[in-house]
Amino acid sequence: MIMEKIPPLFDFDTMPEPETFSNGLTGQDIISVSQFNLEKLRYIFERAREMRELVERRGSADLLKGKIEAALFYEPSTRTSASFIAAMERLGGSVIPITQGVQFSSVSKGETLADTIRTLEQYADVIVLRHPKIGAAQVAADYADVPVINAGDGAGEHPTQALLDLFTIREELGHVDGLRVAMVGDLRYGRTVHSLTRLLRHFDISLRFVSPEILRLPLTVMNEVIDAKIDVRETHDVADVIENVDVLYVTRVQKERFTDLAQYEEVKNQYEITPELMARAKKKMVVMHPLPRVGEIHYSVDDDPRAAYFRQVRNGMYIRMALLAAVLGKA
Amino acid sequence: MIMEKIPPLFDFDTMPEPETFSNGLTGQDIISVSQFNLEKLRYIFERAREMRELVERRGSADLLKGKIEAALFYEPSTRTSASFIAAMERLGGSVIPITQGVQFSSVSKGETLADTIRTLEQYADVIVLRHPKIGAAQVAADYADVPVINAGDGAGEHPTQALLDLFTIREELGHVDGLRVAMVGDLRYGRTVHSLTRLLRHFDISLRFVSPEILRLPLTVMNEVIDAKIDVRETHDVADVIENVDVLYVTRVQKERFTDLAQYEEVKNQYEITPELMARAKKKMVVMHPLPRVGEIHYSVDDDPRAAYFRQVRNGMYIRMALLAAVLGKA
Amino acid sequence: MIMEKIPPLFDFDTMPEPETFSNGLTGQDIISVSQFNLEKLRYIFERAREMRELVERRGSADLLKGKIEAALFYEPSTRTSASFIAAMERLGGSVIPITQGVQFSSVSKGETLADTIRTLEQYADVIVLRHPKIGAAQVAADYADVPVINAGDGAGEHPTQALLDLFTIREELGHVDGLRVAMVGDLRYGRTVHSLTRLLRHFDISLRFVSPEILRLPLTVMNEVIDAKIDVRETHDVADVIENVDVLYVTRVQKERFTDLAQYEEVKNQYEITPELMARAKKKMVVMHPLPRVGEIHYSVDDDPRAAYFRQVRNGMYIRMALLAAVLGKA
Repeated sequence: MIMEKIPPLFDFDTMPEPETFSNGLTGQDIISVSQFNLEKLRYIFERAREMRELVERRGSADLLKGKIEAALFYEPSTRTSASFIAAMERLGGSVIPITQGVQFSSVSKGETLADTIRTLEQYADVIVLRHPKIGAAQVAADYADVPVINAGDGAGEHPTQALLDLFTIREELGHVDGLRVAMVGDLRYGRTVHSLTRLLRHFDISLRFVSPEILRLPLTVMNEVIDAKIDVRETHDVADVIENVDVLYVTRVQKERFTDLAQYEEVKNQYEITPELMARAKKKMVVMHPLPRVGEIHYSVDDDPRAAYFRQVRNGMYIRMALLAAVLGKA
Repeated sequence: MIMEKIPPLFDFDTMPEPETFSNGLTGQDIISVSQFNLEKLRYIFERAREMRELVERRGSADLLKGKIEAALFYEPSTRTSASFIAAMERLGGSVIPITQGVQFSSVSKGETLADTIRTLEQYADVIVLRHPKIGAAQVAADYADVPVINAGDGAGEHPTQALLDLFTIREELGHVDGLRVAMVGDLRYGRTVHSLTRLLRHFDISLRFVSPEILRLPLTVMNEVIDAKIDVRETHDVADVIENVDVLYVTRVQKERFTDLAQYEEVKNQYEITPELMARAKKKMVVMHPLPRVGEIHYSVDDDPRAAYFRQVRNGMYIRMALLAAVLGKA
Repeated sequence: MIMEKIPPLFDFDTMPEPETFSNGLTGQDIISVSQFNLEKLRYIFERAREMRELVERRGSADLLKGKIEAALFYEPSTRTSASFIAAMERLGGSVIPITQGVQFSSVSKGETLADTIRTLEQYADVIVLRHPKIGAAQVAADYADVPVINAGDGAGEHPTQALLDLFTIREELGHVDGLRVAMVGDLRYGRTVHSLTRLLRHFDISLRFVSPEILRLPLTVMNEVIDAKIDVRETHDVADVIENVDVLYVTRVQKERFTDLAQYEEVKNQYEITPELMARAKKKMVVMHPLPRVGEIHYSVDDDPRAAYFRQVRNGMYIRMALLAAVLGKA
């Protein structure tokens, strides 16, 4: 059978070769805050500032045009998945959203995480993974050749949240060294508290941990803080620290954590941020929250210029833009 | 610690500054049909015609390149969400689809609509909201700095549906003044009927309302029509009006509305559009339906050139393209 | 009322006219493997090779920029939907993902597939459909003016899977004629086995069917093979064929197919691919699987260079890129 030649579809010579730059993060996975030393933090924060300038001045860019992000969320997380989708789209990239009901598909058929990851990396240039099990992100990274970004692995880590938290402190107050940071609420189970605390050990700071007795910071994290010779105190009432802190990092005290509901009712008021409490705080300080909140910061605090939690959300997009560009060799 | 300077990623001078044009809708929310006077209707319809020409001649454009739409659907709605996604994509923009299962995420953790909206506006340039509660779109608009477009708020409004309905009448028949429009079916709960009726008060028309007794137009809407001195009649049988109407706007009579099923069986035939009924209608008229339909227009009517309901669907995309461009300062 | 002229938004003369090329597939639906003769296979495979070169050398292209794919999945299928989304995005096109929970929306309101399809074609340039009912893709194609691509219709066909399977055999081994292909596992219900078998009839090959008695190839498919005068044998144990096959196409033997669980336990080991089994196979051969797998290929086989199943996944993206480009008149 003689068949004529099929004319080619693309003229590769006229298509620009993809440019990649080598940086310490190109091709790397982002699994844990322990990957970030001061130099890497400085690099990512500088890039995040550029991303902010880009969004404010031009809205978006073509830096990641043609790149594809698989957003694989085994747990729903509107905020984090929307942030990673927006980050990719603002840099001109595309997204495969697998953000709902993934449990009903391949997974329910018994496929391993490793197989799902090795499938998705055939399609995508980077995989963003949220998974309910601790260690899942590392497993994914072990199997994938493309970069994996941990968007939260159960009780494990949520490194992009910790980076955006630290970036927010830096941008709101101009520096990190010399600050007094109070973490408030559920310090036992609060993954974001643990990760941010670990990042803060790189700096010369004071830490104040404010929680109910049953939700105190775990031993391991506390010992890390002590080993780093950081000035640290624990207390049960935010009123004890409000006057002297530069950062109030608030998390939710969940009713479900208490077996004795009377105990919950008794303590919960000590962890609510009210305008009255804010009146006693420094003029220059910030209130932060990883969100969602359910009343632990009163809505009347929102108009206070020190309320930084929605700016914190926006910083999340900038940090994720910087990380995506970096691991894809474009920063 | 001495660190070298990180070279900048973007050269903003070589990136074109985003152009925005001021029009009456730039930065505005689209919440209710009451926002639209004749001049605004004329403007949007002219833009919608341009969008149709664009899609027919070029397929798409880069007008909203780099812009991001958050499509936040608390209720599933394949048709409306797909329409808003397509509208954004045909203009070169991107979408954060939050169209399924949103109830399982932040929302289920107890986050308020206001907080969800203030989060999404950190990522997106415009928010499209479908919500089951009346008034939700206005609440969202009150909190958001970016434009909010109401894609249906429960028993409230669905303004883009009413605009596409009116646009379809105008494009199918060449004018609106002088027409006789019959609304058929569930006039009591039919949100689209109420919104379209309100828009039609801007024109010199006649209205015929055809419904079972228990599904008659609500008093408030009827009084608005009477106050506008519109020629209006109510009837129980579509056969009474079929010979003289220019527009037959059909909605579904839901069995669930009837406590007495015998009553439903008795009346339902009076609201079915059949080829026999169409044979008695004018040669130049249109049959419309907001869809989905479940038998109230017989499938054999679909080939009738007067059946406009799928063209009506397409007009929805053009109207939403026009609105997105307008509120984003690009029209 | 005198109103000034609204200045036009687009200058169509400066916008390039969309180029389309006529090929045998432009505007066609892809419903069944029976549409593909040797010439069409050669054409699609040549285009798929170009897509691979594109992805490897440039990552992506703008070939389908401005085109929209509606990905309508009535059944969840992470792998197939992600593949079709990636294929469109790598060619610069956009996607309307309707891949989860579609059953809760229009459909649950009782809308017919025909109406859903006629709605989506108002928005999209091509519709990819996965549906649980056999024949659904043909129904969709009958109603749609835009091309419909069958992404699996129940026990019916899954033509893009069969094409990527055949393409993988061709690319891994350099040719198809002269090969001995063994299909292993559930040959009765395995849709991919049936479709691939039908495609292979175009070639000069030998077929070996390896299955438990109750999961043997259906009569109709077997008779088609016999009618094509293909050298064919059936057996109950993969060990019988392992030494002489060039392709081992493995599918899952589902426990649920057996009424007698003892029978399942007895036979299942005969369908597991282990390193020991692979040690007896030819040096140049391939192991394939449509995935997901649940243990029927041991994970220790993954590092064997003959394990082609993840390359097979990637080929799926290339085949779908080629098909999308072809039906949209761009190849």
